[in-house]
This record gives sequence, structure tokens and C-alpha cells, in this order.
Amino acid sequence: MIDWFKQQIGKESAQLSPSFTGRWLNGKLTGAEEGSLTVEFIVREEMLNPGQILHGGIATTMMDDVMGMTVFSLGRKDFFATINVSVDFLRPARLGDTVIAKSQVIRAGDSIINITCELSHTDGKTIARCTSNLVKTKF
Amino acid sequence: MIDWFKQQIGKESAQLSPSFTGRWLNGKLTGAEEGSLTVEFIVREEMLNPGQILHGGIATTMMDDVMGMTVFSLGRKDFFATINVSVDFLRPARLGDTVIAKSQVIRAGDSIINITCELSHTDGKTIARCTSNLVKTKF
Amino acid sequence: MIDWFKQQIGKESAQLSPSFTGRWLNGKLTGAEEGSLTVEFIVREEMLNPGQILHGGIATTMMDDVMGMTVFSLGRKDFFATINVSVDFLRPARLGDTVIAKSQVIRAGDSIINITCELSHTDGKTIARCTSNLVKTKF
Amino acid sequence: MIDWFKQQIGKESAQLSPSFTGRWLNGKLTGAEEGSLTVEFIVREEMLNPGQILHGGIATTMMDDVMGMTVFSLGRKDFFATINVSVDFLRPARLGDTVIAKSQVIRAGDSIINITCELSHTDGKTIARCTSNLVKTKF
Repeated sequence: MIDWFKQQIGKESAQLSPSFTGRWLNGKLTGAEEGSLTVEFIVREEMLNPGQILHGGIATTMMDDVMGMTVFSLGRKDFFATINVSVDFLRPARLGDTVIAKSQVIRAGDSIINITCELSHTDGKTIARCTSNLVKTKF
Repeated sequence: MIDWFKQQIGKESAQLSPSFTGRWLNGKLTGAEEGSLTVEFIVREEMLNPGQILHGGIATTMMDDVMGMTVFSLGRKDFFATINVSVDFLRPARLGDTVIAKSQVIRAGDSIINITCELSHTDGKTIARCTSNLVKTKF
Repeated sequence: MIDWFKQQIGKESAQLSPSFTGRWLNGKLTGAEEGSLTVEFIVREEMLNPGQILHGGIATTMMDDVMGMTVFSLGRKDFFATINVSVDFLRPARLGDTVIAKSQVIRAGDSIINITCELSHTDGKTIARCTSNLVKTKF
Repeated sequence: MIDWFKQQIGKESAQLSPSFTGRWLNGKLTGAEEGSLTVEFIVREEMLNPGQILHGGIATTMMDDVMGMTVFSLGRKDFFATINVSVDFLRPARLGDTVIAKSQVIRAGDSIINITCELSHTDGKTIARCTSNLVKTKF
């Protein structure tokens, strides 16, 4: 599964995402390792809050979408549903900025997966950080 | 300030929102009390995750946007920036569902405001719950 | 199971707790309903931080212990392990204060239980609030 | 200030801690860098939950205490109060285990400090992780 992700690196494949919100976010995969994906997004006008900076909810959506993909990339047979997400907002991002979400699985247990994601500017400064737990779910 | 919000109840005023993301969410204010706003949203296709249910990030965005408006409705002279948001996901919402976000300020201190929001189905069943802290910020 | 808890109300039974930390906290059960327990604690010196107020970690321990008991009071056959806890600190408590932890199960799913707890002064003012998720675990 | 902490490394100075809870925890400082402290604790009986493993609240207390010390070690003139803490529990620790809390300041802003802490076994396996925000407070 991770090999498939590696083949998508740099491709304009966001519009093929199985996530409708993922297509709306229109990210570009730029890195894929076991348990870690890197995706770039460009901040559009409809992603801004009244202070003209990246809406905290949209920053969360970017990270949540990348974390979901990362769990999928583990190639587990079961579906994992998000239990919770906890987010800290550290710095603003503005219209037109390229922002980079990088995920990292911390512990992939049999039933619970704990994963983090960091959203950064291209100069490495952190915009937001989050942690999430997902649970194995039967369809 | 809360009086102004009360006058907006039921109006199709989402497109006048100072929040670009708020316009994209296209909510309708249905209740306004001191420290609590109620906003309805309709789940659109671009709000769905790969499992065809409301994306956790978008659920968070709905609640975060309503919490931000609620803090604004307190009529404080200063701007408040979101420090963190912690979200639990309890039940799915699906395409076309009307979902209701109701906020509640827990403590409005001089420098820190603690606020919660619950996202529910029209039958009252909870979809997601969150808590957020905001800090007074100088421009 | 909840009937057993109701019989413990007001008894000095903390020292019979199966939780060693519970005994150290030395709480007194003052209320028990389906999915909700109320426990009183007295703030001792060893529960204080350098600012001479109730240590945030100990406030969390009080709430976490009560939430664990509450999940146990549901009478489930399986053991539930805590996945995460998210806590907001709102007001100080001081040496000798009686503080009241009241839990509330929000959703008791088959595999995940979502529960909250609030720690308050006797006048009802909130000291801290938290939310936790637990997962069904096989021994 | 950080130099003072470096001088305490390895000393049995826990009983001199200005934190009463810190003394109860009885940790030993084993590392000190700008924005990061490392403290070892030994799991005692009164730190156990009913499952005979380290109580989640006590794990949180260890990390919260170390994060508080770390903020203090920055040498700021103002006092910082904890706004929130969000904790994930990953693995158990047992009676007699030596557990290691290592903090890391993520962003030390003028009014808000964002900090993380990880609690690990001596073999490096993570027991719990947490993130906290603190706010500058006037006395």
C-alpha cells in the first residue's frame, strides 16, 4: 500500500481522492514513508477566517485528512474511525501560502491507532499541531 | 452586540459573514443568547470523507466557526485568537443532513475564554463535541 | 452494579477502593446515578503546586479516577482502558477546600465510551473540566 | 536559570521542590537543556489504578509537573498558569518501573507557551504523551 502512495508523489492526483473534502482541499502528496505522509496545500480565500488568516477548522481538516490517509496507507484490512482530535494553533497562515502537513503514526495498536500531524510553513515554522486516536471499526 | 445577532436569526445572511469559510459552510443562525449561538448547516458533498460521512475536519470547522462568532458576540473590544480545540466524534452525519451547532461560553475571563460547542442531529443525537480556549490578542 | 454504588453513598469507603490512587485521593461518594457519579475530595498539602493551589495533575487524577469508576458502574463485562483525556483548568482550589467531581457518560458505545467530568467548588464554580475516551480491552 | 537546573542533575533534590506534589512524586532530574527537562520517577503502589498499572492521572501529574518546571526554567519574569492539557495513553507502566518524563517547549510566545511532554520506559517505549498551553498571569 505504501508503494502505491510513493507512486503518487508529485502527481496532480488530488482530484482522484476518495475523500470529497480531500478534493476540495486539493493537496499534493510530496512524501510517503511507512506511517508518515507529507501533503502540500495552498491557502485559498474560502479557507480564511474573519481575521484573513487560515481558519483553524480548515487547518484541522487538512491535518485530519492527511492522518486519515496515513492510517489507510498502513494497509490494514479494517476501517479505522476517528475517535478524537486535539489541536494547538501556533502561528497564522495567509492567503496564497503553501502549507505542509506531515503526519506520523506514533503507535499502531491492534484496535487503536495514535497519530500526530504538524502543519508548517515552507520555512519550517509550525502553524498547528494535532494528535488523534482512531479505532478499528467493523462495517 | 447580542441584539444584533438576535436580529439575524433565520435570515439568509451567511453570505454576508466576515468569515470566508463561514460563507462556504453556509450556516443559518437559528438562536442567539448571551454566550450561546445556534447555527444550522446542511451537509454537502464536498464535506464528506471517503466513508461518505461528514468529514471530522469539517465538523470541527462548523463548531470552530460558531465558537468564534460566539466570542465575537460577547462584544469585547479585543480580538481573541484560538489557542486550541479538542474534539470528540460520536456519531456520523450524512449527505443532505441538517446538523445543528450550539455553542456555550463556559468561562469568559479577562484574557482567556473557555467555550464548548456541540454538533447534533435534528433529533438531538450528538455528532461531535468540542472545547476550545481563546486568548486576548493585540492587533 | 449502580445499586451497589448507591449503597456506598456517604460511607467512608474510600480506603476500600480497588484503586491505590483512589485511596490516596480519599474521596467520598456523594451521588450515584446511571452513568454519573459524584465524589467529594479535600485538598491536602501534597496536592498543591508551587503556587499553593491544587496541582493540575491531581485535579486530573481526581476526575480520571471518578470517570474510571463511572465506567465500571455501567456493569459492562469487559475492562475499558483510557485512550485519552483532555482537561481545561478554569479556577484555582486551595488547601483545605472541598472539591466535587461529577462525571457524566456522554455515549456508551459497544467499543468506545465517551465521558466527561467536572470538578467544582461547593458553591458550584467550576475548577476544571475534562473529557475522556475509553476502549473495550480484552484481558 | 537553566544553569541552576543543570547543577541539580542527579541530585536527590526532589524533596526541596517548591511543588508539594513534586515532592510526593519524588522525581530525579536527569537532564536539562534550554526548553527541555528530563525527570525520572519510580512507580509506587499509591500511583496504581485498579488494574495494577500506573494511574493515568498520576502519569499526567508527572508530565504536568515537569512541564511546569520547564516553563519556570525559561527564566521568564511572569508566572504562567496552565490553560489545558491533552493526554494520550499508549502503554502501561507497573509497580517499581522507572519512568522518564521528557518535556519540550514547542513555542514560547509572549503570552502563551505551548509545550509537550512524553513519558517513557527506560527502553524508550512511550507510556503517554501530552501537550499543554500556559498563559502569562499577573499576580
